[in-house]
Amino acid sequence: MSAIPFALIGAGVIGRVHARNIGSRPDARLRWVVDTDAPRGNALAAACGARFSASVDEMLADTSVRVVVIGSSTDAHEAHLLACIRAGKAVLCEKPLAGSLDGAGKCLDAARAANAIAAIGFNRRFDVHHRAVFERVRAGAIGTVESVHIVSRSYEASAPAAAHRAGGLLREKGTHFYDLAFWLAGSEPEEVYAAGGCLFDQGYAAYGDVDTAALTLRFASGALATMSFSRRTTYGYDEMIEVFGSRGMLQSERQRSRGVSFYQGDKVIADGIHSGWYERFAPTYVAELDALIAAVVAGLPADPGLADGMRAQAVAEAAVASLRQGKPVAIPNVWQEV
Amino acid sequence: MSAIPFALIGAGVIGRVHARNIGSRPDARLRWVVDTDAPRGNALAAACGARFSASVDEMLADTSVRVVVIGSSTDAHEAHLLACIRAGKAVLCEKPLAGSLDGAGKCLDAARAANAIAAIGFNRRFDVHHRAVFERVRAGAIGTVESVHIVSRSYEASAPAAAHRAGGLLREKGTHFYDLAFWLAGSEPEEVYAAGGCLFDQGYAAYGDVDTAALTLRFASGALATMSFSRRTTYGYDEMIEVFGSRGMLQSERQRSRGVSFYQGDKVIADGIHSGWYERFAPTYVAELDALIAAVVAGLPADPGLADGMRAQAVAEAAVASLRQGKPVAIPNVWQEV
Amino acid sequence: MSAIPFALIGAGVIGRVHARNIGSRPDARLRWVVDTDAPRGNALAAACGARFSASVDEMLADTSVRVVVIGSSTDAHEAHLLACIRAGKAVLCEKPLAGSLDGAGKCLDAARAANAIAAIGFNRRFDVHHRAVFERVRAGAIGTVESVHIVSRSYEASAPAAAHRAGGLLREKGTHFYDLAFWLAGSEPEEVYAAGGCLFDQGYAAYGDVDTAALTLRFASGALATMSFSRRTTYGYDEMIEVFGSRGMLQSERQRSRGVSFYQGDKVIADGIHSGWYERFAPTYVAELDALIAAVVAGLPADPGLADGMRAQAVAEAAVASLRQGKPVAIPNVWQEV
Amino acid sequence: MSAIPFALIGAGVIGRVHARNIGSRPDARLRWVVDTDAPRGNALAAACGARFSASVDEMLADTSVRVVVIGSSTDAHEAHLLACIRAGKAVLCEKPLAGSLDGAGKCLDAARAANAIAAIGFNRRFDVHHRAVFERVRAGAIGTVESVHIVSRSYEASAPAAAHRAGGLLREKGTHFYDLAFWLAGSEPEEVYAAGGCLFDQGYAAYGDVDTAALTLRFASGALATMSFSRRTTYGYDEMIEVFGSRGMLQSERQRSRGVSFYQGDKVIADGIHSGWYERFAPTYVAELDALIAAVVAGLPADPGLADGMRAQAVAEAAVASLRQGKPVAIPNVWQEV
Repeated sequence: MSAIPFALIGAGVIGRVHARNIGSRPDARLRWVVDTDAPRGNALAAACGARFSASVDEMLADTSVRVVVIGSSTDAHEAHLLACIRAGKAVLCEKPLAGSLDGAGKCLDAARAANAIAAIGFNRRFDVHHRAVFERVRAGAIGTVESVHIVSRSYEASAPAAAHRAGGLLREKGTHFYDLAFWLAGSEPEEVYAAGGCLFDQGYAAYGDVDTAALTLRFASGALATMSFSRRTTYGYDEMIEVFGSRGMLQSERQRSRGVSFYQGDKVIADGIHSGWYERFAPTYVAELDALIAAVVAGLPADPGLADGMRAQAVAEAAVASLRQGKPVAIPNVWQEV
Repeated sequence: MSAIPFALIGAGVIGRVHARNIGSRPDARLRWVVDTDAPRGNALAAACGARFSASVDEMLADTSVRVVVIGSSTDAHEAHLLACIRAGKAVLCEKPLAGSLDGAGKCLDAARAANAIAAIGFNRRFDVHHRAVFERVRAGAIGTVESVHIVSRSYEASAPAAAHRAGGLLREKGTHFYDLAFWLAGSEPEEVYAAGGCLFDQGYAAYGDVDTAALTLRFASGALATMSFSRRTTYGYDEMIEVFGSRGMLQSERQRSRGVSFYQGDKVIADGIHSGWYERFAPTYVAELDALIAAVVAGLPADPGLADGMRAQAVAEAAVASLRQGKPVAIPNVWQEV
Repeated sequence: MSAIPFALIGAGVIGRVHARNIGSRPDARLRWVVDTDAPRGNALAAACGARFSASVDEMLADTSVRVVVIGSSTDAHEAHLLACIRAGKAVLCEKPLAGSLDGAGKCLDAARAANAIAAIGFNRRFDVHHRAVFERVRAGAIGTVESVHIVSRSYEASAPAAAHRAGGLLREKGTHFYDLAFWLAGSEPEEVYAAGGCLFDQGYAAYGDVDTAALTLRFASGALATMSFSRRTTYGYDEMIEVFGSRGMLQSERQRSRGVSFYQGDKVIADGIHSGWYERFAPTYVAELDALIAAVVAGLPADPGLADGMRAQAVAEAAVASLRQGKPVAIPNVWQEV
Repeated sequence: MSAIPFALIGAGVIGRVHARNIGSRPDARLRWVVDTDAPRGNALAAACGARFSASVDEMLADTSVRVVVIGSSTDAHEAHLLACIRAGKAVLCEKPLAGSLDGAGKCLDAARAANAIAAIGFNRRFDVHHRAVFERVRAGAIGTVESVHIVSRSYEASAPAAAHRAGGLLREKGTHFYDLAFWLAGSEPEEVYAAGGCLFDQGYAAYGDVDTAALTLRFASGALATMSFSRRTTYGYDEMIEVFGSRGMLQSERQRSRGVSFYQGDKVIADGIHSGWYERFAPTYVAELDALIAAVVAGLPADPGLADGMRAQAVAEAAVASLRQGKPVAIPNVWQEV
């Protein structure tokens, strides 16, 4: 089998991660790097032995390209997704799906109409620890899921303006975890309550954004998820999940960077958690690509797909509204096929 | 110094714990056991070498009694507290403080007017693990507290009717943790949102009660606490606390009953958490008594005292209202001296 | 049932532990405290409401005394044990059994001839963690025991002269762990190799003693135990056991004093192990007394008994010889009834 | 910089690991695969885009080859090493260095005479956990090293004949850990005592080999290392290290395959250790190759090098003698340059 031709839109941090992962596979080949920033795009293309273009259309005109990874800025996702789907490509789009719920809906409709293989970059689902929890929940190890608790605390806070451009805490960070909570609870989200504030940097307030949040998500099954978010810690990237059910509890534990303990004085000092999200989750980007390639080869739908992206985005919009209104907000089910 | 004369009102489960702990101290002596159930009260009195009475008044007439431990049913707390305070006794009252916020307020007013040594039985504050977390938070180890997460899951669910008589999940279980959250956050609670449902036993619904709940508490400082409650687990009594701040995170870990691990197959099977709350927290009842005796000997206020009980009760009433109304409810500050 | 009358020989550190534990039981009563140091003995007797005597014979003449706890210095054990057994008392003797293997043998013979209830103070067997490991090994959880590893490191080193008087590292510390290894391996010890040295204090060398040792014990079953001893740590009293068998591995983990973790910087800083052996093992002295009283009440042999003390002492003498000779030394089986 | 040309001798399990790792580096290129088993060698060569030869000489005649990785059978190491060194190649030789101490000595002499870059495949030194312990020991975190304990238990036992061909337990498994112990103790080994037996398979006895062993290693500094080896477990590949010193203790903990815990009944069931040594140590082969390439590029000696291989082999021969003779055996220092 010859290698599957890939294109990449966006040569930023996450784009470079995808380029490296595509490059390390014998069954994939990166043909194009597209970026509006020509020097950046050219540099990555050169390093990968790919062609550079500033134009998505030029790349899409190359009929040999089968898969496009979209790592452009969030507000460009909609246009890029629609163009790729129209051109008959399989896609992997970074989250969040689009800059607005409407835009996300158009993408989802287009993908459904075209029967496209369209994946959303919810890489957390590919973490071996989280996935092992998921599989056991599905296998019935804990019976019926009754509650979920998710901690996600970034290591370094984005500056307020950049954070706003990325959608704010409840969209940028949140979508990952709304999706995880749905995936683990095995039930559709119906209502969200978001409390939050600027506890360490008032700068976010100017954008209606927060640095700290606590969320409650209610699912159709009655299960409740709580989430605790922060934009920064002093001890690394902190992510942890507990799923409690009628027959037991499963934990995806905090992961430490090294298994070293030091006994001294009245303390046992262990090496701590990973310093950043990438150090913690690098393997998930590889696994996500594996899953996409497997779907492309088999001609099967992507999982998670655009409907999952749409669901998370609907939760995010309701969470933003809840934060503003100070009360729980119902989540309209806009992701289910009618 | 001769032993301090104690009386005990209530010879139920918790009354027997207090009787045993008083009996094991050389500096305390249990003189009276009062209970409306004569056989039960007589039996405990006999076992402890104390006198039995069915009448609180008869016991209070014994001017040698210095301290009364109130372990009667919740709806009797108010009358017993008022009588003891009027009689000039020091008291330790089991939580919740009273059957209603009004009743609790009367007790608090009476205690303040009489300058009584009046303790509330928030035994969790005396757990060595929780207390070590508290002390480090106060010492500034994690900087400013930004969020708190508390898990409390009972091992065996009370039947719906009994649970209702005890005040329901948000009062009976909740008051312990509203107090802990305040204590750890170091700030007064202002608003609470309670979500919950009957996920495994619809019988609670008839009483407006739930078996599962998720709460969000907002403090004056802006700090947010989340709580995850359940009426039962299949794996023991589950309690865990995380306090996150601007300079680090402190955890009061789940406690295992034994430090034994078994490596077999692809698992490491460790001895689990304690089977029940008493197995987990037995030492706290001893420590709580120590603190009370120290206060009595020194003539100092009890800590935690009735104002702490009043605060927790105010949160509980707001939480119950929130659950009913489906939105956050403000907590009137009724515990502060004006 | 009236309380069992006890006497205590030795009012030192360990004697005071026993006195306190006897005093806290409703079914036991300390009648006598015997010590050659009259002020010390008198003080303890007074505190316990017991009579003091400088004479073991005077105490033994009190026919009401049923049980004697021997906490005198090691070189006095033999005389005290023989006198108590002759007087028909049940005994609990602190380890090591006697100052010499010959002396230990005489005690064992006397106890066997008299059919005495005679316990040896191997308190480690009463640790709930160690005992849970033992019970699962016996229940077959790990199949056939193939190897055992034991760590024991004291917190504070005894001064060389005092350490020598207590028998040296391989006797004083060692006997606990030779007994544990036998108990866990379920097989008689046949050969021992002891390596060691003065790694931090040359003062022990003057007495032929060491501050650090590594031992290998071979059992009749072929199982091998390794032990790592030190006279001091900078991080508390360190004890840990691993038992490896044909079907799995069991661990009696290091016990931490508190379940508190602090996340900061690139570390997770947990509260460490107990500062001293007493903090770690206080409950075992209570459980050891429970077992003795149960044996006395039922008229059953003590477990562990003097034969266990004799075995451990035989291993100790062989270990001392091995250290001196620099090669493994066979352990003559002097503890089995012929 | 153009890619460094590599050759590989041996297309077995470990050879394939090296081939894959060389192939994944942009700065290295596998040119030759040499094996006496032509189908096996050809297959690997084809998969890697390398040439195959059954002849080491043919490969060595290719002057472009700079580095040779020797993964042939142990008895062939000597001839292959000498030939490569003579041909001026840098080498990485799998452990043990040679089939005999004499043979190992010839290789070491040749490498010294030629000033060759000659690495020995002690991959454990490249484990991030072990290495972090090493670096902190070197940095003085635990003061002076006083004792070391190493556990190594294979998951699946080799059959007796194959185990014998590989040198037996004390050579094949042992050399890794004699080297680790030296590396961590920071002192030369002087004496070894090996006890062992056939506890689960008498088949090893026919070859003078064992399935279970306990070793004590004494270093020039006085430090003592204990080791506990087994040929199989029922719970995965088990490796753990503790280094105890005058100022603390460092642990390279058992590594679990996943950070998932399941609370059910009276147990906490965690995902266990890795099923095999390769799953546990795969990254170390990559890191070992990184270090070799860095040495080749910089023209610096390899670390660990042949002298380290020679030391470990000398310990192994003394351990085998100790096992046979039943007493400690001195280790002649044959690895130091005179």
